[in-house]
Amino acid sequence: MPSSERLHEKCAVVGFYNTGPEAARLAAPALMTLQHRGQESSGIAVSHEDRLKVHKDMGLVASVYRPEDIDRLPGSMAIGHNRYSTDGPSSVEHAQPVMREDRLVTFAHNGNLPVTEALEKFLVEKNALRPGSNDSEMMADALEWYVRRGASLGEAMMESFPLFTGAFSVVAMTKDSIVAARDEYGIRPLSIGKINGGYVFASETCALDTVQARHMRDVRPGELIVVDSSGFHSHELARAKQKLDIFEYVYFARPDSMLLGKSVNEVRWNLGIQLAKEHPVKADIVIPIPDSAIPAAEGYAYETHIPMRQGFAKNRYIHRTFITPNQRLREAGVKLKLNPLEHVLAGKRVAVVDDSIVRATTARDLVTMLRNKGAVEVHFMVSSPPVRYPDFYGINTPEQAQLVAAHKSVDEIRQLIGADSLNYLSYPGLIAATGVSEDLLCTSCFTGEYPIEIGEENRKGIIFEQKDS
Amino acid sequence: MPSSERLHEKCAVVGFYNTGPEAARLAAPALMTLQHRGQESSGIAVSHEDRLKVHKDMGLVASVYRPEDIDRLPGSMAIGHNRYSTDGPSSVEHAQPVMREDRLVTFAHNGNLPVTEALEKFLVEKNALRPGSNDSEMMADALEWYVRRGASLGEAMMESFPLFTGAFSVVAMTKDSIVAARDEYGIRPLSIGKINGGYVFASETCALDTVQARHMRDVRPGELIVVDSSGFHSHELARAKQKLDIFEYVYFARPDSMLLGKSVNEVRWNLGIQLAKEHPVKADIVIPIPDSAIPAAEGYAYETHIPMRQGFAKNRYIHRTFITPNQRLREAGVKLKLNPLEHVLAGKRVAVVDDSIVRATTARDLVTMLRNKGAVEVHFMVSSPPVRYPDFYGINTPEQAQLVAAHKSVDEIRQLIGADSLNYLSYPGLIAATGVSEDLLCTSCFTGEYPIEIGEENRKGIIFEQKDS
Amino acid sequence: MPSSERLHEKCAVVGFYNTGPEAARLAAPALMTLQHRGQESSGIAVSHEDRLKVHKDMGLVASVYRPEDIDRLPGSMAIGHNRYSTDGPSSVEHAQPVMREDRLVTFAHNGNLPVTEALEKFLVEKNALRPGSNDSEMMADALEWYVRRGASLGEAMMESFPLFTGAFSVVAMTKDSIVAARDEYGIRPLSIGKINGGYVFASETCALDTVQARHMRDVRPGELIVVDSSGFHSHELARAKQKLDIFEYVYFARPDSMLLGKSVNEVRWNLGIQLAKEHPVKADIVIPIPDSAIPAAEGYAYETHIPMRQGFAKNRYIHRTFITPNQRLREAGVKLKLNPLEHVLAGKRVAVVDDSIVRATTARDLVTMLRNKGAVEVHFMVSSPPVRYPDFYGINTPEQAQLVAAHKSVDEIRQLIGADSLNYLSYPGLIAATGVSEDLLCTSCFTGEYPIEIGEENRKGIIFEQKDS
Amino acid sequence: MPSSERLHEKCAVVGFYNTGPEAARLAAPALMTLQHRGQESSGIAVSHEDRLKVHKDMGLVASVYRPEDIDRLPGSMAIGHNRYSTDGPSSVEHAQPVMREDRLVTFAHNGNLPVTEALEKFLVEKNALRPGSNDSEMMADALEWYVRRGASLGEAMMESFPLFTGAFSVVAMTKDSIVAARDEYGIRPLSIGKINGGYVFASETCALDTVQARHMRDVRPGELIVVDSSGFHSHELARAKQKLDIFEYVYFARPDSMLLGKSVNEVRWNLGIQLAKEHPVKADIVIPIPDSAIPAAEGYAYETHIPMRQGFAKNRYIHRTFITPNQRLREAGVKLKLNPLEHVLAGKRVAVVDDSIVRATTARDLVTMLRNKGAVEVHFMVSSPPVRYPDFYGINTPEQAQLVAAHKSVDEIRQLIGADSLNYLSYPGLIAATGVSEDLLCTSCFTGEYPIEIGEENRKGIIFEQKDS
Repeated sequence: MPSSERLHEKCAVVGFYNTGPEAARLAAPALMTLQHRGQESSGIAVSHEDRLKVHKDMGLVASVYRPEDIDRLPGSMAIGHNRYSTDGPSSVEHAQPVMREDRLVTFAHNGNLPVTEALEKFLVEKNALRPGSNDSEMMADALEWYVRRGASLGEAMMESFPLFTGAFSVVAMTKDSIVAARDEYGIRPLSIGKINGGYVFASETCALDTVQARHMRDVRPGELIVVDSSGFHSHELARAKQKLDIFEYVYFARPDSMLLGKSVNEVRWNLGIQLAKEHPVKADIVIPIPDSAIPAAEGYAYETHIPMRQGFAKNRYIHRTFITPNQRLREAGVKLKLNPLEHVLAGKRVAVVDDSIVRATTARDLVTMLRNKGAVEVHFMVSSPPVRYPDFYGINTPEQAQLVAAHKSVDEIRQLIGADSLNYLSYPGLIAATGVSEDLLCTSCFTGEYPIEIGEENRKGIIFEQKDS
Repeated sequence: MPSSERLHEKCAVVGFYNTGPEAARLAAPALMTLQHRGQESSGIAVSHEDRLKVHKDMGLVASVYRPEDIDRLPGSMAIGHNRYSTDGPSSVEHAQPVMREDRLVTFAHNGNLPVTEALEKFLVEKNALRPGSNDSEMMADALEWYVRRGASLGEAMMESFPLFTGAFSVVAMTKDSIVAARDEYGIRPLSIGKINGGYVFASETCALDTVQARHMRDVRPGELIVVDSSGFHSHELARAKQKLDIFEYVYFARPDSMLLGKSVNEVRWNLGIQLAKEHPVKADIVIPIPDSAIPAAEGYAYETHIPMRQGFAKNRYIHRTFITPNQRLREAGVKLKLNPLEHVLAGKRVAVVDDSIVRATTARDLVTMLRNKGAVEVHFMVSSPPVRYPDFYGINTPEQAQLVAAHKSVDEIRQLIGADSLNYLSYPGLIAATGVSEDLLCTSCFTGEYPIEIGEENRKGIIFEQKDS
Repeated sequence: MPSSERLHEKCAVVGFYNTGPEAARLAAPALMTLQHRGQESSGIAVSHEDRLKVHKDMGLVASVYRPEDIDRLPGSMAIGHNRYSTDGPSSVEHAQPVMREDRLVTFAHNGNLPVTEALEKFLVEKNALRPGSNDSEMMADALEWYVRRGASLGEAMMESFPLFTGAFSVVAMTKDSIVAARDEYGIRPLSIGKINGGYVFASETCALDTVQARHMRDVRPGELIVVDSSGFHSHELARAKQKLDIFEYVYFARPDSMLLGKSVNEVRWNLGIQLAKEHPVKADIVIPIPDSAIPAAEGYAYETHIPMRQGFAKNRYIHRTFITPNQRLREAGVKLKLNPLEHVLAGKRVAVVDDSIVRATTARDLVTMLRNKGAVEVHFMVSSPPVRYPDFYGINTPEQAQLVAAHKSVDEIRQLIGADSLNYLSYPGLIAATGVSEDLLCTSCFTGEYPIEIGEENRKGIIFEQKDS
Repeated sequence: MPSSERLHEKCAVVGFYNTGPEAARLAAPALMTLQHRGQESSGIAVSHEDRLKVHKDMGLVASVYRPEDIDRLPGSMAIGHNRYSTDGPSSVEHAQPVMREDRLVTFAHNGNLPVTEALEKFLVEKNALRPGSNDSEMMADALEWYVRRGASLGEAMMESFPLFTGAFSVVAMTKDSIVAARDEYGIRPLSIGKINGGYVFASETCALDTVQARHMRDVRPGELIVVDSSGFHSHELARAKQKLDIFEYVYFARPDSMLLGKSVNEVRWNLGIQLAKEHPVKADIVIPIPDSAIPAAEGYAYETHIPMRQGFAKNRYIHRTFITPNQRLREAGVKLKLNPLEHVLAGKRVAVVDDSIVRATTARDLVTMLRNKGAVEVHFMVSSPPVRYPDFYGINTPEQAQLVAAHKSVDEIRQLIGADSLNYLSYPGLIAATGVSEDLLCTSCFTGEYPIEIGEENRKGIIFEQKDS
């Protein structure tokens, strides 16, 4: 799915304990590697000489951390965070790691709490609720409250854990300890690496590769890990009921990451193979929507023996909304990112592979662009099933009203986007291609089955399909 | 060639005449599209109410132009420029378009003048040489001198043209006219587009696509184009002896651009086809070094029927040197950009396709990374011949001493990088794959034949091969 | 195939919406460019001050539209039509665009409906069938019926579409809207261009070039396009099952048109290349039958390295049957059009390239003429396979009884025409040379496979080949 | 040279004596074959039952003679004429054959009399000068004067011959005889054929082919031929000093005609061969400007081994000025006639072959069109030398002021038309290629040497080159 209608996930977290003298020097490239999980702002907090210190700013990792910024972040412990990009109001105040003056705890969160009643009630009772706080900041405030009252960071997390209803993979740090934890469903990933006798936490394993750490294992759902001068300690805060968000496989995660022991690239290749088995269209070329759909397109091409070509040139430098040549034409904005290649497309029957369709506006623009460059047939291949339900666990999906598949049949969507055929991967095909048991995955966007309470308000807004239909 | 040792070209230029009320609103996305030609700085100059105004800054296009910056650049005429990225010292003072206080002319240059004696002499005689000026600034000063004395911008270019020895594709603007010109060899590209009755100039046609302009034709080598209120005028300042830099095809230009009427993507695909014909290695997978080698790898895979896989995950957000996790290990820096995919590589015979080898340090790192992830054979395929001579026409190549192919045989390079085989495309194969006659191309990096005088100093530094060897 | 036995296609259509103040001034040269698709009559209808107005007459475009005729066709909307030439009775009454007194809809049609039962039944029921109407007029009457009852033109086309069984590429106009539509197989071409913010429809892209419009894309098979004051709207009336008539490539379309993204000239050149590969005869010169066979002859000459010569002088001024010097000798009529050049032919082994053979009478005359001028060997090369089946989709082919290849073997035809050898392009060779997948093409004249129902009557008249023969 | 700036020659003549019962039935197709020599008007006069009868009209032959018109032209004797097309005022009154009420003589003329003093004086003296008469009409009046006084038509021609100063190839007819004559230089061609025991006269031999007549010989310069009931008689009115206009070879005559025993096609092929020897440019394709330059382009391609391609699609139906899509842009008018083929041209070095350059406006348009379609080099090859002097013998050239080569050097013309090179055939090369001795040819347009007196007025208007320069 091209970035203009991409689901925005929040966020990426990293943590470094005793991996060397300058943790920030590792944290920055690790966050660079996880940039795809959040492009709005980035921050690193370090512990040095018994004080926590943070540097964060709006913008891409590459611009947030100049060498001199890193020089001002000494110390062998660090946590870091990338925040997601959104078109709505945002400011550096909400950038993470959460950290205010004189704080004892700094905190970084990937996920979302759809229900915060208990947490708010706790903070109100403790007179610790700050107006305008978001879920992450409230979580940090709860931890702070406990630590201020003498709890270790690990104890604070154990105490606070029942207040957290939702999806979260978090790292937190005090001057002398780092903790990492995941909700009991493990919706968002969080991995552990070892290097130089120290420990690294990172949202995805690709960041471990960057810092040349060895992937030890993942933080388990419901697990709390505490690392401090006494060592590495694991606590089971809740019984693990693994429900990794299947979208991590479909397009969130980097292809070089491992999730539940599976290579993301390999899963996507399998999605393409499976899609080819289910929908072997007649086409002259297979073209991917870069970059997330490339492995699936490679698999599709491999299985169908149709040659794969680069049908769109992607602008490698555009990561956010930018001035478009024509403000009224959305296509102009899409074209700035993806320019179709006439010489590749003209006269061809094209099987274009994308990873998902959300609103269908981008898909429509893409089909139009392909046709305008002479494609004689456009077969739109989607390496996942129709997205019918919104997400509440850390992805910035639109409301259900804007999910095209919630209201239209596949053929209606096909007509809307103007394709000759529209071929979604089946749900069973998706599950099979992951190589992971269905019950380890959160598939709510496809099925409407939400493993974690999403709250009455959210639930009221959704129309569920008749199961028997 | 991965970006760590990529040749950096200076630069991209654009020009807009009467394409609508707000030229800067088109210039910014056009420069965004040409970002690959220069990432150090960017600038736009406009003409509004009889005054020239410029906005330029260090950084990527995305960060240089905020909406409010564009709002402050009114007017229906604009020129713009992206400057190349270098590791050496650089500052916003040298950012282009060249424009100082009270100037009548603003100027943007893509290329390089290896010999500037005549130009310097002229400026000294006119008492117009500013200390510390680079070639582009001296060119602008010569134009300014003539215009201040009453010449039109077109006349100024005609007068100054004999002073310019080297490669240049330039645009310049006064308050009421824009000119575009290329050296007589047309080493660097420059295209003309039409939109809304106005004219667009851009280094590559992909930028015309972005602003939805129609590609009319290219500025011819030795041609001066003047657009002003009296219309579009062409002048032949020198007989065209077309010598387009062949590296534009090999990897500089965007794949969606057209050069000499050929699709860059198509040429690269042909390079892969040709490489497969010359060197049909036995391999289990073909993997490209993203992004410039992807079309050649697609062609190679197509011709050999070996499946193509994404063997490296590329970080899409790193465009310049960034803090690396380990300053002593260059491989760490490479890995931040390109992370090998173990599941794809392990146990495989890999044909890795890159577009060129300069110093061979990156190639060596890549081979090491592939082997570390379990590749059992690594065949290094290069879609161009050995680079034996430095460039003097606008590419930031290293000195000849650092060009590995200037001093080592192919087998010595193979040993150096640790590959099982190293296969360069032949020079005749390269020419054939472009579909363009050899004598229209500047191939100096391969042949040592420099169409434009490079100056005695430069020539002395080069060891030319014995013709009979 | 020389014009005396050329298949006559009906017809050409054009449409202009808001391309400038005087649409007819563009429509006339566009129809001139499409003259090859119909030489019997021509017409242009415009909408001006809420009234439709038409000018049409028998004859060539050059004689139908005098400057004063164009002056009497004001308005920014127009549709136009050229009708095919036939030897049978014809009159200006059937000239198009269809338009009678007080009509709300004017209509132009390229194609043919072999089955009109449903359409006639509808009109009978509505008491709207006019005696003597042809298929195009009945289509117009159906649209008129709906529009008179309050439907928009787009709605009328949607309602009427199921009544239309056959091949049709049509444009229609009311006082304030233009629609364009193609049957679901897209047998006849229809392209869309953009110019000055308005839209152009034309049977072939060469007409877009004439009016300097940009080729946007083709109207898709089964697509309805409506342009009115609310903009450009696309509707899918039927699923596209593209079956472009392969004869458009072989000789109908102008060589400068693009069909399914392929240059017609390039396809014909490829036909010649392929023919040379299949049948590399020994000859001293290659001569084309002008004009449609020229590109194939160029390709044949290129591949075989046999020089190409102009072996026949073509009279450039004869477009219809003309007084012949000897009414009993058909050869005299052929010679008036094509005069063999003795100095080129005498003593030579000649490979003469034509695009097709229908009745073989012309081929026989040509061979006789070549021999009479001293050709010592005549090798008749045909850049398409034997035509065995009649057309029902808008080409005026003779009945199957008159198709020589329906009844004679290749060697019998060779004997009949008196050639030393007769070499047809193979059917697979034809398909390969187009560069388009076989299933996108209507090849009924070669294969007898009719994608659209041709009606029982027509089908009864055809003898189909035994599949196992 | 494309038709927009074509030199217009007047005219074509034919005559038929006793070739069968219906001479007009042969005259019409013969005139059709000679249409290239005049497209303004056409006429046929017959002798039937002792009366002369004429049918003539403005327009092309195809439209002037309907079957019923021919039916109304009975008789076994006929003369006919096609008049040239001009943009100036013209009317059916001046259409030929010259023939007024009660005339005894009808007359048809190809050529021009630059000096008419003697003729006018004669008519004034005889009180036979009609106001507004042109040269042809005065010639007819002189003949009429003699015949009315009892002279035979042959005698009338003998008497009148000294009055005719200029270029003329004429046929005339009374009720029972036909004469044919040429000026002593034989500037314009005139051939004699035999068929069915009768005689045919025609401006070119190709018309003899059309009516299946055998080419007997040409009317000699200064010869008068009389055919009547007593037979075929030849008279030498003046000593032949053959000076055939070399432009007949270069592009006037049809390629299938014979002139001075040479095939026009063969001469043009030789022009191309010679041009290749003199200017062997480096190019990827040779393209002709259709149609007259095709044989020269074939020769050029043959000699250089560069493949020939159809680079322009010619509209076969446009013979005169037609409504152009943009009245201000001349290029639009050229494009209506000749549409460049992007797929053939893009990325190619093009050697475009034309037969001559007159004003250079069309050449400039053609080069622009080629470049706009992606030709990277345009080498303009002209199969004749620079045209420096106007013609006074029957070609409608512009005044010398408008002949570009009269005022500009070859390199200045090259710059004007925007070509990479401009290569004229040398004058000696031209002569050699014809295979005819220089002194048999009128080469005044190249050399300024006028064999026939052009009159003082005309001579004053010309600037002659220094012979020694």
